[in-house]
Amino acid sequence: MTKIRIGIVGYGNLGKGVELAIARNPDLELVVVFTRRDPNQIKLVTKSATVKSVDDAAAVQSAIDVAILCGGSATDLPRQGPAFAALFNTVDSFDTHAKIAKYFTHMDNVAKENNHISIISVGWDPGMFSLNRLYAESILPDGNNYTFWGRGVSQGHSDAIRRIAGVKNAIQYTVPIENALAAVRSGANPKLTTREKHIRECYVVPEAGADLKKIEMAIKNMPDYFADYDTVVNFISDDELKLNHSKMNHGGFMLHSGSTSPLNQHIIEYSLKLDSNSEFTGSVLVCYARAAYRLAQSGEKGARTVFDIPPGLLSIKNGEELRAELL
Amino acid sequence: MTKIRIGIVGYGNLGKGVELAIARNPDLELVVVFTRRDPNQIKLVTKSATVKSVDDAAAVQSAIDVAILCGGSATDLPRQGPAFAALFNTVDSFDTHAKIAKYFTHMDNVAKENNHISIISVGWDPGMFSLNRLYAESILPDGNNYTFWGRGVSQGHSDAIRRIAGVKNAIQYTVPIENALAAVRSGANPKLTTREKHIRECYVVPEAGADLKKIEMAIKNMPDYFADYDTVVNFISDDELKLNHSKMNHGGFMLHSGSTSPLNQHIIEYSLKLDSNSEFTGSVLVCYARAAYRLAQSGEKGARTVFDIPPGLLSIKNGEELRAELL
Repeated sequence: MTKIRIGIVGYGNLGKGVELAIARNPDLELVVVFTRRDPNQIKLVTKSATVKSVDDAAAVQSAIDVAILCGGSATDLPRQGPAFAALFNTVDSFDTHAKIAKYFTHMDNVAKENNHISIISVGWDPGMFSLNRLYAESILPDGNNYTFWGRGVSQGHSDAIRRIAGVKNAIQYTVPIENALAAVRSGANPKLTTREKHIRECYVVPEAGADLKKIEMAIKNMPDYFADYDTVVNFISDDELKLNHSKMNHGGFMLHSGSTSPLNQHIIEYSLKLDSNSEFTGSVLVCYARAAYRLAQSGEKGARTVFDIPPGLLSIKNGEELRAELL
Repeated sequence: MTKIRIGIVGYGNLGKGVELAIARNPDLELVVVFTRRDPNQIKLVTKSATVKSVDDAAAVQSAIDVAILCGGSATDLPRQGPAFAALFNTVDSFDTHAKIAKYFTHMDNVAKENNHISIISVGWDPGMFSLNRLYAESILPDGNNYTFWGRGVSQGHSDAIRRIAGVKNAIQYTVPIENALAAVRSGANPKLTTREKHIRECYVVPEAGADLKKIEMAIKNMPDYFADYDTVVNFISDDELKLNHSKMNHGGFMLHSGSTSPLNQHIIEYSLKLDSNSEFTGSVLVCYARAAYRLAQSGEKGARTVFDIPPGLLSIKNGEELRAELL
């Protein structure tokens, strides 16, 4: 079997998750990791792969089939995405919702000009949750859709707390409210405010001598991030943070309830319970890399999202095997 | 907007469910129902549609875009499927698992010869559960997949009980065992026997004077249907059956658990809670009819399953709207 040759762009948590996932798919092989750091400082798990500077990507254009972009959406992907789509088929996890339309158009233009496929916004949300929202709404168009995230760490909210004066370190968990979930599952079709859906649970390590009351108020009143939620602030020690809050677990629930006639209602629920956000997201990116390769092989080009990809292209199995084993 | 013109083949529970679903999708219209009964005896909910004999289908070939086949898998679809695929684009819910490969090939040949698209085995299982098995296995290829059905009526098992001497009427519920579900959700990756996954719960109306003990034993020892399960038999009156057991609710759970590294495990769960099996299945068929129309419009032909259909084709929304609203 000729393996699909993968490049990883960026070797942080997500890049490492992608590397682990490639090793579990026998039709894929990791060929190169591109980094902005000194390539000599990076030790890969995959001994057969090499590390190169992102600036040297053009030189190995013919050596890889799909580049998986593992940078962040805020500053990395808006530049890296188009730059790499000019050189390779790409898959990324762009998740700045308000900017997806603009990013899609940019990626679509570059990918088309260079005869590449670029699948954007892949992961679990956007990604698997988006797909399940789409399937559910297509089946029950009159229904109500609810997404709950957590229990899991929000990197953005944790960072926001860390920027408060007197805070040494912090982790923020987004926690779905059980009563709200239960109301949706009952088919009551509740109208839920932001505050009624999630609690924000914070674990904060203060600097020595910091004013704890002031930190707590600064968190609870922070607009956009915390003011619209019931927020719980716990002060803990550095050791406690390391011991109990270093795992990047996450997950969530997508529910859709809708009726087909006055007496008949239906509830669709999709949920994820993830020990490692980055390893799971990496695993989703990897099967979409397989799809990107297959689409490119069949002559397609341009940007795509999970909505455009026939599900069978994600699997190592062929159509006949899928119909026999999974249908 | 030019509406997609739909024909329904067979006006039983599923056909009626399809009719209800069409009414909730403004880009679709029901044009004709084909029946094997006397067309004059059938009263549709949709006043603008007509009823015709299945034998007159060829005469209205140009009047509809997609025929939704609502016959059963045992005897109807093996004949109706190919006959209608010769005339129309089709969608059906063929669910005899052991015969899917043969049916697919037959439908593929006929559809290709006649420039049609035929999407087979659409519904929730096969259908939405199959899709979620595929997505889950593609993301976590080393994982374990579990499907639980119910609580819901199994038509096949109810029929099997009704064939026993002394039985006047019967309903059989397939019930997932909570402990087994909990073990899977915990990530324990249990090996579960047939008996450990589902209970079979029977409500039986006996003929006057029938030997109840004999009926109970005949049910519990019936090979294939009941012998491998813990089966509960309840004898009830005709009135009680009508009052408490006439709703065709169903549903189930698809769970997949797998790891990405020695310490990190993930659980994917998809579940359905359906008040009406046939109305929900009808709603799934209807959005796949939209996809069949779009594929045919773009020049594709042959048989397809849910694994082959880009999800976005199911929605009334276009790509830009989907990216803005659901991604």
